[in-house]
Amino acid sequence: MKINDTTGTTRSSLAPVERIIRKAGADRVSEGAGIELARVLEDYGIDVSREAITLAKHAGRTTVKDEDIRLAVARIKKS
Amino acid sequence: MKINDTTGTTRSSLAPVERIIRKAGADRVSEGAGIELARVLEDYGIDVSREAITLAKHAGRTTVKDEDIRLAVARIKKS
Repeated sequence: MKINDTTGTTRSSLAPVERIIRKAGADRVSEGAGIELARVLEDYGIDVSREAITLAKHAGRTTVKDEDIRLAVARIKKS
Repeated sequence: MKINDTTGTTRSSLAPVERIIRKAGADRVSEGAGIELARVLEDYGIDVSREAITLAKHAGRTTVKDEDIRLAVARIKKS
């Protein structure tokens, strides 16, 4: 299922996000909760990725690697 | 595509995560970076969901709603 949000962009399927909420222990999940968590995770993912891209360039690379993601997460948590 | 990590659990498709990294401006992304970001987002999603479940129960509900997710994110950012 694809969901079009108010900005007109297409969101990914809700299924993986609902799976995460249920894995955390939820019995019942509203559709709105799934949409909200998908938005939250996408925003956080973009923040981490932007930092990772900066770190990769700083290391003289054009390819983003797992070590860039890890260092980016550690730096974002501190801010 | 499903990816089995070293713990034996099945990760969701990498495609949505790679899309997020590219949306952030990356030209090239290693497979390891995609796997790492998927792991980071799942862990963060579970943390947010656990807090949201606690908040829903506190409000006398068994269904997790979008307002629980929003409040959970705000509280987790402060810690």
